Amino acid sequence: MASNAPTKSTFHMSPEEFRKHGHEVVDWIADYQKKIESFPVMSLVQPGEIRAALPKDAPAQAEPFETILADVEKLILPGITHWQSPNFFGYFPSNNSGPSILGDLLSSGFGVQGMLWATSPACTELETHVLDWLVPALGLPEKFLSSSTGGGVIQDTASSSSLCAVLAARERATNFHSNRAGLTSRLVAYTSNQAHSSIEKALQIAGVGRENLRLIDVDETFAMRPDVLAAAIERDKVAGFVPFFACATVGTTSSNGMDPLAKLGAICRQHYLWFHVDAAMSGTAALCPEFRHLQNGLEHADSYCFNPHKWMFTNFDCDCFYVADRKALIQTLSVLPEYLRNKATESGAVIDYRDWQVPLGRRFRALKLWFVLRYYGIEGLQFHIREHVRLAQRFAGWVKDDERFELVVPPPLNLICLRLHGSDELNQKLMDGLNRSGDLFLTHTKLNGRLVLRVSIGQTNTAERHVEKAWNRIQEEASRLL
Amino acid sequence: MASNAPTKSTFHMSPEEFRKHGHEVVDWIADYQKKIESFPVMSLVQPGEIRAALPKDAPAQAEPFETILADVEKLILPGITHWQSPNFFGYFPSNNSGPSILGDLLSSGFGVQGMLWATSPACTELETHVLDWLVPALGLPEKFLSSSTGGGVIQDTASSSSLCAVLAARERATNFHSNRAGLTSRLVAYTSNQAHSSIEKALQIAGVGRENLRLIDVDETFAMRPDVLAAAIERDKVAGFVPFFACATVGTTSSNGMDPLAKLGAICRQHYLWFHVDAAMSGTAALCPEFRHLQNGLEHADSYCFNPHKWMFTNFDCDCFYVADRKALIQTLSVLPEYLRNKATESGAVIDYRDWQVPLGRRFRALKLWFVLRYYGIEGLQFHIREHVRLAQRFAGWVKDDERFELVVPPPLNLICLRLHGSDELNQKLMDGLNRSGDLFLTHTKLNGRLVLRVSIGQTNTAERHVEKAWNRIQEEASRLL
Repeated sequence: MASNAPTKSTFHMSPEEFRKHGHEVVDWIADYQKKIESFPVMSLVQPGEIRAALPKDAPAQAEPFETILADVEKLILPGITHWQSPNFFGYFPSNNSGPSILGDLLSSGFGVQGMLWATSPACTELETHVLDWLVPALGLPEKFLSSSTGGGVIQDTASSSSLCAVLAARERATNFHSNRAGLTSRLVAYTSNQAHSSIEKALQIAGVGRENLRLIDVDETFAMRPDVLAAAIERDKVAGFVPFFACATVGTTSSNGMDPLAKLGAICRQHYLWFHVDAAMSGTAALCPEFRHLQNGLEHADSYCFNPHKWMFTNFDCDCFYVADRKALIQTLSVLPEYLRNKATESGAVIDYRDWQVPLGRRFRALKLWFVLRYYGIEGLQFHIREHVRLAQRFAGWVKDDERFELVVPPPLNLICLRLHGSDELNQKLMDGLNRSGDLFLTHTKLNGRLVLRVSIGQTNTAERHVEKAWNRIQEEASRLL
Repeated sequence: MASNAPTKSTFHMSPEEFRKHGHEVVDWIADYQKKIESFPVMSLVQPGEIRAALPKDAPAQAEPFETILADVEKLILPGITHWQSPNFFGYFPSNNSGPSILGDLLSSGFGVQGMLWATSPACTELETHVLDWLVPALGLPEKFLSSSTGGGVIQDTASSSSLCAVLAARERATNFHSNRAGLTSRLVAYTSNQAHSSIEKALQIAGVGRENLRLIDVDETFAMRPDVLAAAIERDKVAGFVPFFACATVGTTSSNGMDPLAKLGAICRQHYLWFHVDAAMSGTAALCPEFRHLQNGLEHADSYCFNPHKWMFTNFDCDCFYVADRKALIQTLSVLPEYLRNKATESGAVIDYRDWQVPLGRRFRALKLWFVLRYYGIEGLQFHIREHVRLAQRFAGWVKDDERFELVVPPPLNLICLRLHGSDELNQKLMDGLNRSGDLFLTHTKLNGRLVLRVSIGQTNTAERHVEKAWNRIQEEASRLL
């Protein structure tokens, strides 16, 4: 045998090998779920440490599956920050569940492309159907239904939804001139100074420029002030700008601030601005009727998004993006080359989701969402959302009862913002000490110029005992520092 | 019990339930793999048929996992076009493999966010490492290594890579003015009239406008003509435009045309254009030294991408995007809010991949790529790529030997473009008849204004017998029509 002749007649994993190794990986994950609380939540590795243990070159020869899986345990696990730990309270939740993981596994197994209806009709139709299901389930306006003028689509992230909203708004405002000839109008957009960084990024990408994004002041609850928005729009109009887009947030990242949609939306209507509402984390709460008031005024929205991959037990990526006028979105994003033409598209009877997003290719993401909705039922989702909110409200009470701490803002839902009376350095030390201990994981923000600790309650298995332990550990560490 | 009280004390799937149902889903996929050839490749459902079988409303109560999985078989399967069938010859391959599915399953199980190094160091470091592995493995220029001035990142699709390349080019050309103040320069871009539609889409998104994309003529092999590119740039400069970006294609979608990178790249260098190379499908061939000549001249590229999720046995999504100057990309896409600040980022010692892409959130996609590279080894990947090319070349020979057919262009790799002598209608009928038969699946394009059938050979399990059967069925159907 020549030295460079292949050593096997096939290198593929057969279905029976897949069955065997698949069971091993499922078992690995089940065991990981069982022992997840035994790991330090935050990885303690130093920069470069994971890479240093990996071979310099790609393997020339095939390796057994067992070796690879063993290396996950040995080489990868130490570099994991355990987002699925019930002691993870950082950022926003990115929660997960068995039915979601298994729906996603089926999507990998099918391996279909959902760019067109014709490339796998079930991929498109299940997505449309499940996104329609969520409209009444969340109390969203009927115009977001596919049977109305709008419709929903799964994007990877709220960042991408914001970008698509900005683009459709830009095209509507320029009568589709920008897509054709390039941007020449002096467009300006509006959002609060608490909005997510993806809004600024979207305006940069769209060629509008971050200086043409007005960051509107907020009130003491960190909600956008309608009077300031209205005045900014008037001022810009007088100055010869073209106001075209505003984004309101239902649950800001820093403090879960709730923008007043009804008032903001009415102003946007009056001035013909595209009104986008970003409810990435908090939108899930609308499954419970008692929290829907936070989205009052949503009937003014031209577009809306929330992320089941944050707080609805659906693994990343899964952002649900709704528009009131699907034609504006499709006309903005559609480019149809010959090699994608087909009879179904030309009949006009189908949705081609490639025209609702930036990329062409798309995965069958509706499967995992369908699995979650059915496995939990609406009542199951409501139950766990309510429990997270209840735990957060209890936590807020504990903070209020300890005079060493300040509850920076009353929590509308499941995010607590607190600080130890004293300097930013003291609070940073408190957080760093807790995170290094491995017992829990928190992140910070700045509110009114001061460093604030955030306790975000929303991981799948976070229960009373985890929240109690977190508060005990925070108190302990504070006592040590003071 | 009140009627609206929850019926259970938890709705989550426990680790032991996950183990049980996980095995069931793995078995389902293994069985699907075994019987995949028994299904008609193209789904034959009519628009609306899948939705009609689904309940109108989201389920109020939780349903057993068994019911949901049974519905996949009953309600979803009929609407699947079987991209993983060895008889799938449409579009470009979107091939897949056991190790990839299982690596992706682990990624779902970990459920980590890879937006920052600090949010899970292994997610970032494995990605950097595996993308570095691929640089010598594919014979790419060393400047794409993370240890040089550049580096690689996993994007969802080549569309997103193209968009990132356009944006970085736009910012470089305007000295980062567009991001700040909005686009005001008269930018123009270049690609061939055979380039992928995502280039046009990227220029629309970036605010440059499709009229400012020059579609350069091609030669008889459908490769971009350097003389025409050079003349177009000169003409635009005289007219007061600012040429800023060109995209060359290694393997065009319609016909697998190969743009001459060395000549095009030299022109781009001369005029200070950002030179992006899109090798989405064909880039994988560079694993085999004998095919690397197709990428001669890549040393001129500012950015490059190829999709392991097309021809490298890695399930969607996985596009590898490389840049020569990572600073230009990062400066274009970075927005750093307080809530994402952390010591590792500020040390400058780590990569934060959120600054290399449009979205903020990101999945641990390097795991599946790592699994594929190790399970196959470079020799295994080479073996199967060579086999696909060998089968395509044989197929081309059969077409040439049947005088009823025209081989429209000699296939450089694994895509055969053929037509039956006669009208477009005749060829459309031929394709539609074959696709409706369920025996195989083909798609079409137009070349020189005529309808052409494409036979794309690259699905994981496509072997000699499938290719022989496909050709026999094409001949049979042609005989029936003529």
